[in-house]
Amino acid sequence: MSTAKLLLHCPDRPGIISEVTNFITINKGNIVYLDQYVDHDENIFFMRVEWELKDFFIPADKIEEYFHTLYAQKYDMNFRLYFSDQKPRMAIFVSKMSHCLYDMLARYTAGEWDVEIPLIISNHPDLKPAAERFGIPYYVFPITKDTKVEQEALEMELLKEYKVDFIVLARYMQVISPEMIKSYPNKIINIHHSFLPAFVGAKPYHAAFERGVKIIGATSHYVTTELDAGPIIEQDVVRVTHRDTVHDLISKGRDLEKIVLSRAVSKHIDRKILTYKNKTVLFS
Amino acid sequence: MSTAKLLLHCPDRPGIISEVTNFITINKGNIVYLDQYVDHDENIFFMRVEWELKDFFIPADKIEEYFHTLYAQKYDMNFRLYFSDQKPRMAIFVSKMSHCLYDMLARYTAGEWDVEIPLIISNHPDLKPAAERFGIPYYVFPITKDTKVEQEALEMELLKEYKVDFIVLARYMQVISPEMIKSYPNKIINIHHSFLPAFVGAKPYHAAFERGVKIIGATSHYVTTELDAGPIIEQDVVRVTHRDTVHDLISKGRDLEKIVLSRAVSKHIDRKILTYKNKTVLFS
Amino acid sequence: MSTAKLLLHCPDRPGIISEVTNFITINKGNIVYLDQYVDHDENIFFMRVEWELKDFFIPADKIEEYFHTLYAQKYDMNFRLYFSDQKPRMAIFVSKMSHCLYDMLARYTAGEWDVEIPLIISNHPDLKPAAERFGIPYYVFPITKDTKVEQEALEMELLKEYKVDFIVLARYMQVISPEMIKSYPNKIINIHHSFLPAFVGAKPYHAAFERGVKIIGATSHYVTTELDAGPIIEQDVVRVTHRDTVHDLISKGRDLEKIVLSRAVSKHIDRKILTYKNKTVLFS
Amino acid sequence: MSTAKLLLHCPDRPGIISEVTNFITINKGNIVYLDQYVDHDENIFFMRVEWELKDFFIPADKIEEYFHTLYAQKYDMNFRLYFSDQKPRMAIFVSKMSHCLYDMLARYTAGEWDVEIPLIISNHPDLKPAAERFGIPYYVFPITKDTKVEQEALEMELLKEYKVDFIVLARYMQVISPEMIKSYPNKIINIHHSFLPAFVGAKPYHAAFERGVKIIGATSHYVTTELDAGPIIEQDVVRVTHRDTVHDLISKGRDLEKIVLSRAVSKHIDRKILTYKNKTVLFS
Repeated sequence: MSTAKLLLHCPDRPGIISEVTNFITINKGNIVYLDQYVDHDENIFFMRVEWELKDFFIPADKIEEYFHTLYAQKYDMNFRLYFSDQKPRMAIFVSKMSHCLYDMLARYTAGEWDVEIPLIISNHPDLKPAAERFGIPYYVFPITKDTKVEQEALEMELLKEYKVDFIVLARYMQVISPEMIKSYPNKIINIHHSFLPAFVGAKPYHAAFERGVKIIGATSHYVTTELDAGPIIEQDVVRVTHRDTVHDLISKGRDLEKIVLSRAVSKHIDRKILTYKNKTVLFS
Repeated sequence: MSTAKLLLHCPDRPGIISEVTNFITINKGNIVYLDQYVDHDENIFFMRVEWELKDFFIPADKIEEYFHTLYAQKYDMNFRLYFSDQKPRMAIFVSKMSHCLYDMLARYTAGEWDVEIPLIISNHPDLKPAAERFGIPYYVFPITKDTKVEQEALEMELLKEYKVDFIVLARYMQVISPEMIKSYPNKIINIHHSFLPAFVGAKPYHAAFERGVKIIGATSHYVTTELDAGPIIEQDVVRVTHRDTVHDLISKGRDLEKIVLSRAVSKHIDRKILTYKNKTVLFS
Repeated sequence: MSTAKLLLHCPDRPGIISEVTNFITINKGNIVYLDQYVDHDENIFFMRVEWELKDFFIPADKIEEYFHTLYAQKYDMNFRLYFSDQKPRMAIFVSKMSHCLYDMLARYTAGEWDVEIPLIISNHPDLKPAAERFGIPYYVFPITKDTKVEQEALEMELLKEYKVDFIVLARYMQVISPEMIKSYPNKIINIHHSFLPAFVGAKPYHAAFERGVKIIGATSHYVTTELDAGPIIEQDVVRVTHRDTVHDLISKGRDLEKIVLSRAVSKHIDRKILTYKNKTVLFS
Repeated sequence: MSTAKLLLHCPDRPGIISEVTNFITINKGNIVYLDQYVDHDENIFFMRVEWELKDFFIPADKIEEYFHTLYAQKYDMNFRLYFSDQKPRMAIFVSKMSHCLYDMLARYTAGEWDVEIPLIISNHPDLKPAAERFGIPYYVFPITKDTKVEQEALEMELLKEYKVDFIVLARYMQVISPEMIKSYPNKIINIHHSFLPAFVGAKPYHAAFERGVKIIGATSHYVTTELDAGPIIEQDVVRVTHRDTVHDLISKGRDLEKIVLSRAVSKHIDRKILTYKNKTVLFS
């Protein structure tokens, strides 16, 4: 059944939950999900509510206007509204490593995710066969220092053409330029192959090996203009020992990376992430 | 039954295991533990072997000399020899937080550890009652910038007097000076309340909260002259969410800290740690 | 500041959150915590709300009556009301192992927990010194098959005398009889040394060793009349390998047991557990 | 470079390591891996050693004979010899769920595993498209109670024809009959979707949900004639909460299952598993 998903945050004041749930209930919406959270340090109220649209009095395309007029202004709310029957459209960027790509394509093909993947973009031709296996268009944009600006411009045209809502960097070995990041605020998800903020930047497994850590990690985060410093969505770790070589770390890390990235993408697809300042609020 | 524990490392060459195990077996030592590991990057061979001394031909106090003469020279070995009937003597340094201290005293009192804890040293009087509960002498050395050198000198005299073999910093909120570190090389174990190398230095939980991490950690390591950069012995982590305040991180972290520190101390007491360059080899 | 904590569950219907939060807000209570959860399978609504009593119109000793009259009847609610200035009183039952006991006494002494521990009860005298270290009365009730009924009766008298609210079985090696369990419904917390429902009953580490598992666990749960089958509060696990002996499992398990038990006790003290059928709802 | 991998176990006696490493070294084999383990309860010695064959005096096809004659008889050894240039051949059995299958095919295609996958067998046609994507023959053997014996006989013929060395049951929803199990002793790897021995048999996620566990697991094991009771190779777990529905457990479990199964298969391919009685010894 078709549902509306409303995510919002605003300064915390008494009565917000009452008003919002009343708005839905009075108009004959059946609430199937409600979670809220108050950040008492910042005094910010966060809420995610989902209701069935079947008997809802307000037409779907008018809900945003009504909610804005009646509540968002009053409470100084920042809100987003989604509908379950509008699948988000996701582009995948890859370089040469296939593990994250295959993991996502397998989920997509198995129907695990409510998403469309209309295209894959890469700076290398290597993973074209993988894309073809799953029947997804694959575009190659080789990137050098000199061509970066124009190539990214072409990529962005393509993303517009394909009506892409958000981008997943699946071990894409290029830094995204600020222009592109600004066009997709909190809509570019990256997987960094370390337990951030440890080992920012290139070759984190080599750095972890050098440091002699006993645990390695992976971190998925939204991309911001500061390298590896955007809001963290999900992290996980795995134990290593002195017996593990750099190659072993890379191998163990691959499993982490794909699971951590897919968990983050899954939360994003389900509209369960709110971002505030440089942190994420993840609804269950 | 009394055993000898031999830990060694040397350039890797064929035949070392054979020679060492032959040495023990021929002299009627019954091997009860043997583990080895080769670091192929550095070409270093590491070994830990333990055998019963009951029928061993060579007197305990001569084994070191014999082993040095017969094998250590030949293979350019770095080795240490311990006996199970000689309990190591451990000093605990604390400031004001009691959780790591109580965890260790409880293990000590329950007979979990083969160790002596002859004294506790602190820069504050706060935990004297805890020490008294377990009947362990507690010495207070208040430390200011001006008194640090002389106070540490007094502490070191006391440590000598009590024949202390190694030191555990159980949330001791003072940087140890290089002089003291040099006197106890790889014999001072610290617990840092973060997943190193993330959040080096002061207030790591506050820094973790600011960064919005989804997992926090704790790290036990040997103290070297570079802050929080010594060989890592053990690490562990626990999940946190956006709902956790700094206070919650501190609270969850306490449990991590005490367990991670005690695991490291336990390995040290059992003579299961070899250090090479800035890393540890942990035998099982 | 003094707060009221209200936990409730009832059949899910629209408007409950609104009504309850209105009740608090209108009467000038400042809500500092609110979390709710709907079990859509069972159609049950669960809620925990906490508010400051400073300016609350209704006197603390009248809140229960008012809430019952105005809302609990209407919504067929099952509710409990607590006040932050009334510390729960907890009895600890032990046998011979000290690790869980020390862990709790250390937290208690350090002020980590908002609880009173007026007495410790045991079927053995062994841990009397531990109790004395922390100045807590220790009562011994030796139990044999023949004396069980009468000894438990005496224990229950003592618990009443000390006004005990709930009981923690800290590796207490006796099955509690149904009479006692019925007197403390969902108020007796046990730690079982396995990942339940694997290895119910005696000697779970031996059974885990025999089965060759690669992970061991510990489970804290409320005690019901069916052995090791009550509502699970908290579980955790640790990796083991083929190298670990039964003794190693027991040793690794001790750390798990004490942490898992203390996490459960902590949640219980904070009034963050609701029980429904044979499961727990744990609020954050 | 081509290597030989020797795995053995035998009653523990002094000198085995010496003799075996001498045998290799004297014949100009360069040892690149050695690990051993003694089960002191059973008094069994386990060893895995790997050496380069380049300058080895004994021809590869004679090593087994020589080793048998010279050492295996003397020490009553049970041993297996493998060569790195002989890739094991693995058949995958599936039913309708694709997650484990895709995970393995992605690793295979990316060159992560030193294995051949010549065919996939199923009791349903559903995953034929997945097999075709990766160009692997897919055979369907519908199985009913009445046809089971004859269909398995046909499967076994096919396995022989394809020279299959071992079988992976990737969420294959059929019990394998004893005849087939006996033909592939410790060569059929299954993934069970629970933390064994909890929740043996069908619908473990439903059972876990009913029991209200706070952690779910997955277990890969060798198949023996007793259901879900064979030697455990690998296990892992993930946290769940009261908010997770059965559907959520299934979804979280999928990620566990594929990772745990692939870890086990990886160890098997690398010849790092020894089985003794009903347990596995896993070399690093």
